Amino acid sequence: MNSKIGDLIYAGKAKDVYETDNPTQVIVKFRDDITAGDGIKSESLVKKGFYNSVISSKFFEVLEKSGIKTQYIELIKPGYMLCKKLDMIPLEVITRNIAAGSLIKKFPFTDKQELNPPVIQMDYKNDEYHDPMLNDSITIALGLATQQELDGIRDITLKINAILKDFLLERDILFPDFKIEYGFDSQGNIVLGDEISPDTCRFWDSKTWEVLDKDLFRKGESGVMDAYMKVASMILSNEDKEKWNINL
Amino acid sequence: MNSKIGDLIYAGKAKDVYETDNPTQVIVKFRDDITAGDGIKSESLVKKGFYNSVISSKFFEVLEKSGIKTQYIELIKPGYMLCKKLDMIPLEVITRNIAAGSLIKKFPFTDKQELNPPVIQMDYKNDEYHDPMLNDSITIALGLATQQELDGIRDITLKINAILKDFLLERDILFPDFKIEYGFDSQGNIVLGDEISPDTCRFWDSKTWEVLDKDLFRKGESGVMDAYMKVASMILSNEDKEKWNINL
Repeated sequence: MNSKIGDLIYAGKAKDVYETDNPTQVIVKFRDDITAGDGIKSESLVKKGFYNSVISSKFFEVLEKSGIKTQYIELIKPGYMLCKKLDMIPLEVITRNIAAGSLIKKFPFTDKQELNPPVIQMDYKNDEYHDPMLNDSITIALGLATQQELDGIRDITLKINAILKDFLLERDILFPDFKIEYGFDSQGNIVLGDEISPDTCRFWDSKTWEVLDKDLFRKGESGVMDAYMKVASMILSNEDKEKWNINL
Repeated sequence: MNSKIGDLIYAGKAKDVYETDNPTQVIVKFRDDITAGDGIKSESLVKKGFYNSVISSKFFEVLEKSGIKTQYIELIKPGYMLCKKLDMIPLEVITRNIAAGSLIKKFPFTDKQELNPPVIQMDYKNDEYHDPMLNDSITIALGLATQQELDGIRDITLKINAILKDFLLERDILFPDFKIEYGFDSQGNIVLGDEISPDTCRFWDSKTWEVLDKDLFRKGESGVMDAYMKVASMILSNEDKEKWNINL
């Protein structure tokens, strides 16, 4: 490792964040834990942390190459990502290209309806209040972000969506929706943080419409890790696979 | 009556809408029914329709005098309001000056916290989906309104809030929040419709903080009609009271 792992700063549902010897950097450890249903359903999946860290790193690299600011510095080794330290904004920014999940439960959209332009939704990351959906007016009144910051977040999010949707479709994966989180870096820039993985996205095989994400776990189906590994196999280059000694 | 009452067009939870002999006008009948909890709790209160129609008429007159377009033409007699026929937009536009009710249940606001600027929330008027809260992106994707229409609705709503808040405070009533609905008139203008009454607003006595609205019914307390009549007494002029033979 280039960076020394320090004290635990934050423990989330599936990741831990550690200090490093550099005060502007942290190490994000991707754990094997997986949860669903507001944390009610919880399990551990062997190598989930390994694959989610490799998949997230790939997406962050693709986005950085397209000019998007992310927290990503490098994958130290699978499971351990060196990142810029961010002051996280407690918003779950959800972008939807195809209607699925809670959207069709809460609103009269048709299952698998195309959403173009994409639908953007922001939920308040707050366990006590069960992550309620926000609107701009409530977000601003709660002091979570300003109107200018919300407009900026939407702009960046639409760019990220366009980049990843194209990248995935070229690799035969549909991108129905995804959840991302942002934070402020030490210069006050809004920077993409958290992860982009089958835990936080819907991925469907574009040829078979096979589900390749956490929905399998939510629905109690088998083959969750097989699906996550298939996503890794489809998006990683041969170089990536050799680097991390992945045989898929 | 100036206008002949025709066929029933629409029956809501507390109002009926009838055709008239003029295709651009309707008669809104304010019924005595009162409901709460997504329609689960239901009762009838003698003279509620009478007072809500008189109170709503007063507010519509105040708003029209300040240049706000409303559906209101005249109160034919208490309970029966002659209105422009509108093509209603299925949005419940909620404006909040003081935190109360569902806002403090769903989000970490403090009870009675001042909200300045006011918080605006739009819920989808849809019984099957239990009137879910919207954001602009979802509203537009559902085809309920365009971005321009939503921005227009917010502008008019803030004006209405300012006018009514001042009018009420001069009459010793606080205006924590209210719900209004809009529709399009035959020229395509966005026009205020529905009602403005203790059924659809929170009103608190500014000196005693006494509740003067439907919250009394929601909480199963007595004196609901006394509170509605007190609101009428506080906002109506002596002329209004004489006209409708109201002795309060």
